Amino acid sequence: MTDFTKTRGAFHIPDGVIYLDGNSLGPLPLAAQAAASQTLTDQWGEMLITAWNRAGWIDLPRKLGDRIAPLIGAEPETVQVGDTLSLKLYQALGAALAMTDRKIILSDQGNFPSDLYMAEGLIQTMGQGHELRLVAPEAVEAALSDEIAVLMLTQVDYRTGRRHDMARLTAQAHELGIITIWDLAHSAGAFPLHLAETGADFAVGCSYKYLNGGPGAPAFIYIAPQYRDHAHTVLNGWLGHATPFAFPLEYTPATGVDRMRIGTPAVVQMQILDAALDAWRGVDLNDLRAASVALSERLIAGVEANCPDLRLASPRDPEQRGSQVSFHFQDAYALCQALIARGIIGDFRAPDILRFGIAPLYIGTAEIDAAIAAISEIIKGRLWDRPEWKTRNAVT
Amino acid sequence: MTDFTKTRGAFHIPDGVIYLDGNSLGPLPLAAQAAASQTLTDQWGEMLITAWNRAGWIDLPRKLGDRIAPLIGAEPETVQVGDTLSLKLYQALGAALAMTDRKIILSDQGNFPSDLYMAEGLIQTMGQGHELRLVAPEAVEAALSDEIAVLMLTQVDYRTGRRHDMARLTAQAHELGIITIWDLAHSAGAFPLHLAETGADFAVGCSYKYLNGGPGAPAFIYIAPQYRDHAHTVLNGWLGHATPFAFPLEYTPATGVDRMRIGTPAVVQMQILDAALDAWRGVDLNDLRAASVALSERLIAGVEANCPDLRLASPRDPEQRGSQVSFHFQDAYALCQALIARGIIGDFRAPDILRFGIAPLYIGTAEIDAAIAAISEIIKGRLWDRPEWKTRNAVT
Repeated sequence: MTDFTKTRGAFHIPDGVIYLDGNSLGPLPLAAQAAASQTLTDQWGEMLITAWNRAGWIDLPRKLGDRIAPLIGAEPETVQVGDTLSLKLYQALGAALAMTDRKIILSDQGNFPSDLYMAEGLIQTMGQGHELRLVAPEAVEAALSDEIAVLMLTQVDYRTGRRHDMARLTAQAHELGIITIWDLAHSAGAFPLHLAETGADFAVGCSYKYLNGGPGAPAFIYIAPQYRDHAHTVLNGWLGHATPFAFPLEYTPATGVDRMRIGTPAVVQMQILDAALDAWRGVDLNDLRAASVALSERLIAGVEANCPDLRLASPRDPEQRGSQVSFHFQDAYALCQALIARGIIGDFRAPDILRFGIAPLYIGTAEIDAAIAAISEIIKGRLWDRPEWKTRNAVT
Repeated sequence: MTDFTKTRGAFHIPDGVIYLDGNSLGPLPLAAQAAASQTLTDQWGEMLITAWNRAGWIDLPRKLGDRIAPLIGAEPETVQVGDTLSLKLYQALGAALAMTDRKIILSDQGNFPSDLYMAEGLIQTMGQGHELRLVAPEAVEAALSDEIAVLMLTQVDYRTGRRHDMARLTAQAHELGIITIWDLAHSAGAFPLHLAETGADFAVGCSYKYLNGGPGAPAFIYIAPQYRDHAHTVLNGWLGHATPFAFPLEYTPATGVDRMRIGTPAVVQMQILDAALDAWRGVDLNDLRAASVALSERLIAGVEANCPDLRLASPRDPEQRGSQVSFHFQDAYALCQALIARGIIGDFRAPDILRFGIAPLYIGTAEIDAAIAAISEIIKGRLWDRPEWKTRNAVT
């Protein structure tokens, strides 16, 4: 059994704070501070340029990929870390579209807008008449056909926590000759994933949510083994070159998923992520999932029993959820602010969603009960109804 | 007059090390350690997700752009920081090509290979018959014509330090209706730049060389004021959206250079860069340039007087150099290793170049004289001739 007391001890949670926003930015792993300090002082400071070799900086994109692989059920040497999720999605889609003559990319309206923007940008640049077709999440299955080139989905809806059945949709897509790209932003580190078993073709994700890599932590890209040595590259940076340090004028992509590197890696962010991933030692993702479901059910039951004004926005069936519980509320932003003022940190998503990330690495029943009590008290006393909480900040 | 004693005190240079590789990776500014620690402990640790607003993280790409602008002679609100140089080049070229019907991108064989790779990737993706035309650096001027769409150059050759005359080439390009993109990787922080005055259309650069932002520090992009509100975007990430936190499904680029943001900014790297930029307070770039030329001339004279086997690879005329001195030597890699073993850190570039970055912020005559003495001793005693220095590491 996973010892969640131990995992909790690996994070800094401020006094008086109950942190239910790890699906937006995971909390600080205590090991991150030493990693950053060591990277700056002992490596950058003392080794200077030689740290690229001596401190292994140059290997970080691959090393971190190999550490993330088991967390997402991927084969060894199929994952590479770097850049941002939007860019990794762009690369995956560019590679996928090069594998087919079909022209339609199917996605859903629950996808991250950024994924859709990047896809629109790519197909506009390609100018080959591709279409980005959006349907409702529940209509995806029916929209699959042999006209579809790529099924590009985010597995877990960032607003509601609704989770697509990756295995089922991937199998259906493959029967129709459709290439799949899965965005795992709200999946990686949230529950067990089985990319290899599922046969997913491409996947991308970020590391600053459930993987706790910190603000601006790099993204990852997965390419199935059968494609990784041939995948077309659209962002041909020098570090994805077969011989980057020979500096030839012609581009030749590296063998394997290394070809998805672009420019110079963000070493400091990567070293922090490396330290953050230590928190997963000894964690059984099945235990994590069981704890997540139990905590989520507890939160839903508690809120529904006490606050009839809050309407569940997440699927009621745990099998259809990621690791997040969302509620509709007409003044969700103000309620979110009122909770933050009491140290209960969830977040708001327009127009009326209050969402709570459930991360058993550092959240237990006590935190859930305290959150329920605070929500109940605020709702019953209309304590959210203050003018200063009616104006939204840039980021929430 | 700039007080270079003061600037030197802002950096950590290890005992016994003479660092002549700041054109590859600038040394650690002492202020970076506190910045990283504060970002992790006080901001990420204590503020968690709320730090995006409370600690101003969300404003970092613009704030850092505004800090870099005066260092490159750019107008306010024309520079944005993020991602890597390769990606910023891709964005600049995508925007430039959207402004013209011409099909030829002119560059030179002294450009960074990564810039050329990215350009090839973009025009292949566009599939509109664009051509990337490469000429020798000295043949650029003659190759300008009204068939050229974009003149895309790196101002300072990363191997030889040869510097293009940006003002002259930009003016000639503009007379022929050619859009200019300048890569300032080896220019920013190396000598005075005058983007606004020059009328450059686009520029990109990195911040880990002469700007000392650390390993993996973010890049920057400049768009001339007359283009920044209309520039076409090819990498449409959510943070470049006009209303990123409304999460609409359709992409609408932000006004101004903000549209060149892509995904979530690398906060930790940006905070370190922010601290690193403090070293430029009180620095007059004309003083920096005068010091750089004096130190470079001293190095050339010393090496040439003592080591006839080393042949100057940089232009002899200081006006045609950046802030770097390079020499050809048949066993340049081994010589570089022999120097590193004595704490004199320069670097090697294939096939036979030994290069030394001259950064007066932390390099003075004593360091140059010590480097000359070490090179002379190693060459005269053939001390570089050891088998373990004949095999190249991944990065040098």
